[in-house]
Amino acid sequence: MAAAAAACRLLRLAPRRLRPLTGLSLLPKPLSASSGWRRYCAAAQAAAPPPTASAATGETVGEFRRRIRVSKVKGGEDEGAAWVGKELTVRGWVRTCRAQRTVTFVEVNDGSCLSNMQCVLTPETEGYDQIDSIATGASVLVEGVVASSQGGKQKVELKVSKMILIGESDPTSFPIQKKRVSREFLRTVAHLRPRTNTFGAVARVRNALAYATHKFFQDSGFVWVSSPIITASDCEGAGEQFYVTTLLSNSAEGGCLVNSIPSKDGRVDWSQDFFGKPAFLTVSGQLNGETYASALSDIYTFGPTFRAENSNTTRHLAEFWMIEPELAFADLNDDMACASAYLQYVVKYILENCKEDMDFFNTWVEKGIIDRLNSVVEKSFVQMSYSDAVKLLIGSNKKFEFPVKWGLDLQSEHERYITEVAFGGRPVIIRDYPKDIKAFYMRQNDDGKTVAAMDLLVPRVGELIGGSQREERLDYLEARLDEANLNKDSYWWYLDLRRYGSVPHAGFGLGFERLVQFATGIDNIRDAIPFPRVPGSAEF
Amino acid sequence: MAAAAAACRLLRLAPRRLRPLTGLSLLPKPLSASSGWRRYCAAAQAAAPPPTASAATGETVGEFRRRIRVSKVKGGEDEGAAWVGKELTVRGWVRTCRAQRTVTFVEVNDGSCLSNMQCVLTPETEGYDQIDSIATGASVLVEGVVASSQGGKQKVELKVSKMILIGESDPTSFPIQKKRVSREFLRTVAHLRPRTNTFGAVARVRNALAYATHKFFQDSGFVWVSSPIITASDCEGAGEQFYVTTLLSNSAEGGCLVNSIPSKDGRVDWSQDFFGKPAFLTVSGQLNGETYASALSDIYTFGPTFRAENSNTTRHLAEFWMIEPELAFADLNDDMACASAYLQYVVKYILENCKEDMDFFNTWVEKGIIDRLNSVVEKSFVQMSYSDAVKLLIGSNKKFEFPVKWGLDLQSEHERYITEVAFGGRPVIIRDYPKDIKAFYMRQNDDGKTVAAMDLLVPRVGELIGGSQREERLDYLEARLDEANLNKDSYWWYLDLRRYGSVPHAGFGLGFERLVQFATGIDNIRDAIPFPRVPGSAEF
Repeated sequence: MAAAAAACRLLRLAPRRLRPLTGLSLLPKPLSASSGWRRYCAAAQAAAPPPTASAATGETVGEFRRRIRVSKVKGGEDEGAAWVGKELTVRGWVRTCRAQRTVTFVEVNDGSCLSNMQCVLTPETEGYDQIDSIATGASVLVEGVVASSQGGKQKVELKVSKMILIGESDPTSFPIQKKRVSREFLRTVAHLRPRTNTFGAVARVRNALAYATHKFFQDSGFVWVSSPIITASDCEGAGEQFYVTTLLSNSAEGGCLVNSIPSKDGRVDWSQDFFGKPAFLTVSGQLNGETYASALSDIYTFGPTFRAENSNTTRHLAEFWMIEPELAFADLNDDMACASAYLQYVVKYILENCKEDMDFFNTWVEKGIIDRLNSVVEKSFVQMSYSDAVKLLIGSNKKFEFPVKWGLDLQSEHERYITEVAFGGRPVIIRDYPKDIKAFYMRQNDDGKTVAAMDLLVPRVGELIGGSQREERLDYLEARLDEANLNKDSYWWYLDLRRYGSVPHAGFGLGFERLVQFATGIDNIRDAIPFPRVPGSAEF
Repeated sequence: MAAAAAACRLLRLAPRRLRPLTGLSLLPKPLSASSGWRRYCAAAQAAAPPPTASAATGETVGEFRRRIRVSKVKGGEDEGAAWVGKELTVRGWVRTCRAQRTVTFVEVNDGSCLSNMQCVLTPETEGYDQIDSIATGASVLVEGVVASSQGGKQKVELKVSKMILIGESDPTSFPIQKKRVSREFLRTVAHLRPRTNTFGAVARVRNALAYATHKFFQDSGFVWVSSPIITASDCEGAGEQFYVTTLLSNSAEGGCLVNSIPSKDGRVDWSQDFFGKPAFLTVSGQLNGETYASALSDIYTFGPTFRAENSNTTRHLAEFWMIEPELAFADLNDDMACASAYLQYVVKYILENCKEDMDFFNTWVEKGIIDRLNSVVEKSFVQMSYSDAVKLLIGSNKKFEFPVKWGLDLQSEHERYITEVAFGGRPVIIRDYPKDIKAFYMRQNDDGKTVAAMDLLVPRVGELIGGSQREERLDYLEARLDEANLNKDSYWWYLDLRRYGSVPHAGFGLGFERLVQFATGIDNIRDAIPFPRVPGSAEF
């Protein structure tokens, strides 16, 4: 409080006399007068210490201190019991406001966890005269003493001695009211949807999955490599790629004139483009990642990748994040072991660190998801060859929509049958696929017909991870490029890795949003990323 | 070794009988016959256990185990002394090979650290007949016993009992020979440069800075938010932005025909583009980040951003990574405190965790860099207002190339004078800049002339971090948009944050490659990122 008061006072002084303030400070009264602001400053000033003397040439920057958040109070084993009797200040957004005869209950959420702080206001509360302006979506500061709660929903609540309305929220226009709103609607207000329970929880679990990803690889000695986003390398087929260009321009009023696009003989003159030739958004960082694995041994990428695919499904995004580890001196077995250990690690991490959010998903989004995830952590993963998988599917006598035959790719229905039915919910890795349905860089097996590829299948989602051992033998790789009608010259640097100190290596790729779906039960991938990009929409 | 032998044998069996193998496994003989491979498999097989019985429907995936790397052996306080007498297998790339009369010294690097493992081979070493094929760049497996080293350069070396050449490297064509090669040249072989001391060290320090960034923010309760890369939002001025489009196509032989670009009345028809309107690569995730800070309190972004700026300098990239934290319920003082604490944390982290690499930079790249970084960690940062900085510069009586006058932006020479000369190498934050030279979203100070902006200046690099408190008052923000001739309708969602529960908030941005430059002393930013994108070049 003292610091906040000082902020109010000192911001009116010359900047060089400003004292560093941290954690608790608020701001002077906004132009749009709100009596709360004024009163907050006035009240807080009383307790403010005098500013320290300023140095002749500058003043030191203050210490960075974290505010106490609701998760800190309510997130422990005791759900806040140890805080009873202690003073607490909470800053957050009003979720609901229930006025009773003598008390008003305001649920305040600060985004640090799913739980709100139940705040109990009475006519004695300073600022109670503003209670009529407290609506869903408003931001407030509440100060008081933590007390045991009589209600069954929470262990503690805040007896509020002072409330300050920071930012109002017009209840007639605020798009996210208490009534349940559809996820479809929430996509149209993607800037506000993190203020809902579901999207707050998705954001926190997504964050935990990302951090667990870094922890797993860092603890295993992998180096994070930022593979390039823009690429003019011809290695990636141009199909389904976005062009990145500066040749178009909307500077002319009314839009970009086609005849102002630099051209030569009726064709776009790429030499005048920013990179001097056609450039694209990357579809994968793997080939670049292999270059670093061939020097640092083990690396991983974690960055955005892109597909200009016109797919309007619940499983596709035009922009999504990928995790692509690459292990040197490793074969397909190492690759499978790494993928399994990785998945178990991150799932275990969220089960342990996001308990409240996971309970929420278990109750409201997908019943049984915690059991499903627990079994991923506890059961060892199963592997089987593609050939055996085909036999299993044929032997099942189940009617599938798509045909099952050696040489054809497995469809989602097949994958889900294997992991959900045949193996009763256990993750399964299918390996050694026919080479004709897999990428050129995958290592040919000795049978001449299959490659050392693997797909990790999980219940409900199907394929979550795809990987392979890479072809490290120059002659094999060149033969595969020829078979695939790819231009060897474009791959000069990729082939160099096989010319100079080639090593057996393997890696895999994981679509991060698929992982978020798998871990939260959210069924539409557009709800697994803050601002989804899909055909016809790149809003916000 | 047993596992490797099993791999050799089992890969010839039916896939479903494959036993999971980890860590140590290598591969069967490549097509390009190399006697080392064959002998390795044969030798290793002798000790291999029989494969375990396979389950009826699949076999479990093996445990993920890390190989022992050179960093593990030599990275400790004792530089490997505790390993003396122990057996060790190293897989890596040959840096140098010195043949003497009775012994040959091969320096092997596995990328886990700067140090090579000095390997001592004698005619008794199995595989010694291949010694003539061991050249710089080749990959090898060496097995032996760790011994104290007589040489002064290292505490331990490996007495090799067996060596296997994994991948050859033709010494007549391998681009990175022992002789020192220029960094300019190395940019043309960006796929091989991580195999040099300098770029291996840059990659490891870059990785450590990234991980420290995540650790700092995660430990402080910030949530990582992936701000979008592609944006069709009109919020970011189209100047210096890349277009992202599917309207161009190289499918026609000879390139993209201009008259095949969808158009209407001579203008590009954006309605037919992938997103239904012009779309760009993001220049900053800040505005999107603010939406999440207005729900979760504290967030940070860490992702790629882009500038289509035609700058061929040592400080500019067309594609670079940015870190953009955003703090709710925070003012400029909190922002400065956070930025200072962040910078000190990550610098301290690399000084503690990348000692060997930092010593390398200190010796070979920038003498004194460790002292410079230590002083950043130890000294508290200084703050001063822009107005005082102008006074200081004018009072210095130093001749600058660019004029110094209240209202003009500070140039690099001014910034470096302040931090390097006036404050003797101490980081300095300049705050409260004239509003006319700063962005519309920065919060107006009460003087009506300045905004609550801050730039953090460091010796040698100049501005490393730029931040501000954001204008949270709707009427002020709208007035600023009008002044800047920006279309308020485009900002509807950004303005919504001020309509519904607005809170004081602040944040900053940091170009990650600038941080890598600052931390390593590397003077060209193209050497601070694996695959630099600059005008005329997006190779690899």
